[in-house]
Amino acid sequence: MNCDTKRIGNQTVKMKNPPKIITTYSMVGPKEGEGPLGKYFHEVVKDDTLGKESYEKAESELFYQTVIKAIESASLKEEDINYIFAGDLLNQLTSTCFAARDFNIPFFGLFGACSTMTESLSLAAMMIDGGFADYTIAATVSHFSSSERQFRFPLEYGSVRKPTSQWTVTGAGAMLLGKEGNFPEVTHITTGLVKDYGIKDSNNMGAAMAPAAVDTIVKHLEDTGRGEKYYDAIVTGDLGKVGKEITLQLLEKQGYNIRDIYYDCGDLIFDDEKQGTNSGGSGCGCSASVACSYFYGKLINKEIKKLLLISTGALMSPTSTQQGESIPGIAHAVSIEFNDNGGEK
Amino acid sequence: MNCDTKRIGNQTVKMKNPPKIITTYSMVGPKEGEGPLGKYFHEVVKDDTLGKESYEKAESELFYQTVIKAIESASLKEEDINYIFAGDLLNQLTSTCFAARDFNIPFFGLFGACSTMTESLSLAAMMIDGGFADYTIAATVSHFSSSERQFRFPLEYGSVRKPTSQWTVTGAGAMLLGKEGNFPEVTHITTGLVKDYGIKDSNNMGAAMAPAAVDTIVKHLEDTGRGEKYYDAIVTGDLGKVGKEITLQLLEKQGYNIRDIYYDCGDLIFDDEKQGTNSGGSGCGCSASVACSYFYGKLINKEIKKLLLISTGALMSPTSTQQGESIPGIAHAVSIEFNDNGGEK
Repeated sequence: MNCDTKRIGNQTVKMKNPPKIITTYSMVGPKEGEGPLGKYFHEVVKDDTLGKESYEKAESELFYQTVIKAIESASLKEEDINYIFAGDLLNQLTSTCFAARDFNIPFFGLFGACSTMTESLSLAAMMIDGGFADYTIAATVSHFSSSERQFRFPLEYGSVRKPTSQWTVTGAGAMLLGKEGNFPEVTHITTGLVKDYGIKDSNNMGAAMAPAAVDTIVKHLEDTGRGEKYYDAIVTGDLGKVGKEITLQLLEKQGYNIRDIYYDCGDLIFDDEKQGTNSGGSGCGCSASVACSYFYGKLINKEIKKLLLISTGALMSPTSTQQGESIPGIAHAVSIEFNDNGGEK
Repeated sequence: MNCDTKRIGNQTVKMKNPPKIITTYSMVGPKEGEGPLGKYFHEVVKDDTLGKESYEKAESELFYQTVIKAIESASLKEEDINYIFAGDLLNQLTSTCFAARDFNIPFFGLFGACSTMTESLSLAAMMIDGGFADYTIAATVSHFSSSERQFRFPLEYGSVRKPTSQWTVTGAGAMLLGKEGNFPEVTHITTGLVKDYGIKDSNNMGAAMAPAAVDTIVKHLEDTGRGEKYYDAIVTGDLGKVGKEITLQLLEKQGYNIRDIYYDCGDLIFDDEKQGTNSGGSGCGCSASVACSYFYGKLINKEIKKLLLISTGALMSPTSTQQGESIPGIAHAVSIEFNDNGGEK
C-alpha cells in the first residue's frame, strides 16, 4: 500500500496522521535558570559541570539525563523508543554520541548547528507518519563552556565579547513523539535550504542566520497557503536581539508583518542587560530548552493553539572562518498545533 | 490513510514500496584511482586539490561535483530532488554544508562518521517509502589531507603511521533514489545502536568499529529471519584488514559464517602493500565511493542480486581521545536487491 503524496510545494510536507508530542523535558544551567524563563524549565542544574571532569562530559551528561527523563515522564522505557534523532555543536557530535552509547535506542546523528531541534523534530515526526516508528525522540544540547573552547577561546583567556555576540546556552531539550493521544501535534514540516548571504563576522551569527529563517518562513507560508496570522506564535531559535530585528524587517519587505506574534528563544532566555549576554542566547540547547518548556507549556495550557517553530543554524566552523569563508545558514520549520479534543485518547 | 507498520524486530524496517537507486556517482583522488578498484569509479581526479586553495575547499568541491553529476546522469534537475541527506568527517560538516549552499535542495545534515553512507541512504529511502518525496539523494565525502589535519597531524609533520592505521579515502559517492523503474532497490533498513567496547587506540579504528558492525549485522539477520547465506555479498564500509578479520571471528562465535561472501570497502580500495596504506582505506568516502561504483555495478551487471551494505563509523573526536575516552562505534545496514524485471519501467 502506497501513501498518497504528502508534498505540498517545494519544501513542505503535510502529515497524514500528525504525530503527537507526548512529553518534553528541558534541563538548563544556573545562568539560564536565573533568566526570565527560569521557572518554566523542567530542571535547572546548580553546577554546570554536573560533577564531571570536563565540559564536554558535562554536556553529554546533561543530554543523557534530559532524554532519560523525557522517556520516564511518558511512562515509557528505552526499549519502547524506535529511533532517536540528535546532534550538538561539538566536533564529531561528541556529547550526543557519548551519551547515546548508554541508550539502547537506534541512533541517527545529525548536524544542523543550532537548527538541530527542528531538524531532529522533522525527522522524528516523519518516521512516525511514514509508518516506521511508534515512538521517536528528537533531542539536542549545547554547553556554554565547551562551545567557547571550541568556537572561540578557552574561558581562562578572558576575551572581550562584541555587542552582537550571543551567549551559548547550557541546556538540553528532548521531545518524545508518538502516534496517539490528546497532545500537541506536528502538522507540517518545511525543510530549509542552506543559504549564504555573505556575512563573515562569526561574532554576529544572528545576522548570518536571519536570511535563512526568513527564507524558510516565507516558503512555509507560501507552500501551506497560510497567512502569517494563522499562527498564534512564530518562534525562531536563536537569532537574538540583532537577528530578530533583521528578520522582522526582511519579512516586512516581503509583505509579512509578524511583529505581534514573533518571538525568538535566544532573545527570551536571558535578560541581556542584567546577565551580560549582549545579543541573547544561542546554541542547539537554546531553542530546544525554550521550546520544550515555555512554548510547549503554552500549547498545553491552551494559551496558544498554533505554533510555528523555526530553529536556525549557522553552519560555519573555526576552520572555514579562518579560511575567509562567509557563514551559511539554515532553518527548519515545524508547525505544531494543539487541537484539544477534550481528553480523547 | 495510515500505513501498516513497517517495523520488523527492534531495529529493522521493511519498505512497503522499495525505493529504487536510480543512479550513483563516485569521484576519487589519484591514489584511489591507482588502487585495485580504479577502473570502477565514475571519475578519478588527477589533482586532489581540485584547483582549490585548501583541502577543505577541495573536499567540498569533490562533494558538489559528485552530487551534481549523479543528478545529471539521471537526466534530472536540482529542482526535482526533494531532499539531500549528507554529511562528512569535518568539524561542523564544513565540506558538505559549504557545497550545499550551491544546491537548491532541502538539506538534512548528518553526522555518523564513516557510517554516513548508509545513514544517509537509510533516511533517503525512508523519505520516499514514507510518502514524503519523489526523489532524494544520499551522499558523503572524505579527503585524506583534511582528515589528517583534523584528526591526526598536518601532512608536513611527517608522522609515522602504525600498522593498524588506515588511510582516509579522498572520495565521494552519491546515490539518487526514486519511486519507480527497473533499478536496484532498498528493501530493508537496520539502524544501529551506538556501541562502545572500550577500545581506546584511535590508530586502530577497525577494532573499535568491528563490534558495532557485528551487532548490526546480527540484528539485521535476526529481525529479517534471514540466514547469512541469503545474501550474495555482505559489505562493510571501512573496517580494513584488521577490523575485517575481527568481524569474521566475532560473527563465527555467534554462529554466522560469512567468510565467502564478506567484503570490506576499506580492504578493497587500496593495495595496502604497494600503496603503503597499512590496514586499508577509511573515511565516509570509502564505503560511498566503492558502494556507488563497484558494488552498484555488480548489481546492475547481475553479478550479485542481494547486497547487504553496512557502513561503519568510529564516533570519537580528538577531544574525546585526549580526555581518555574510548571509541564508540555505530553501523547502519541497508539491504539492496536487484530483482531485474526485464526492463519494465
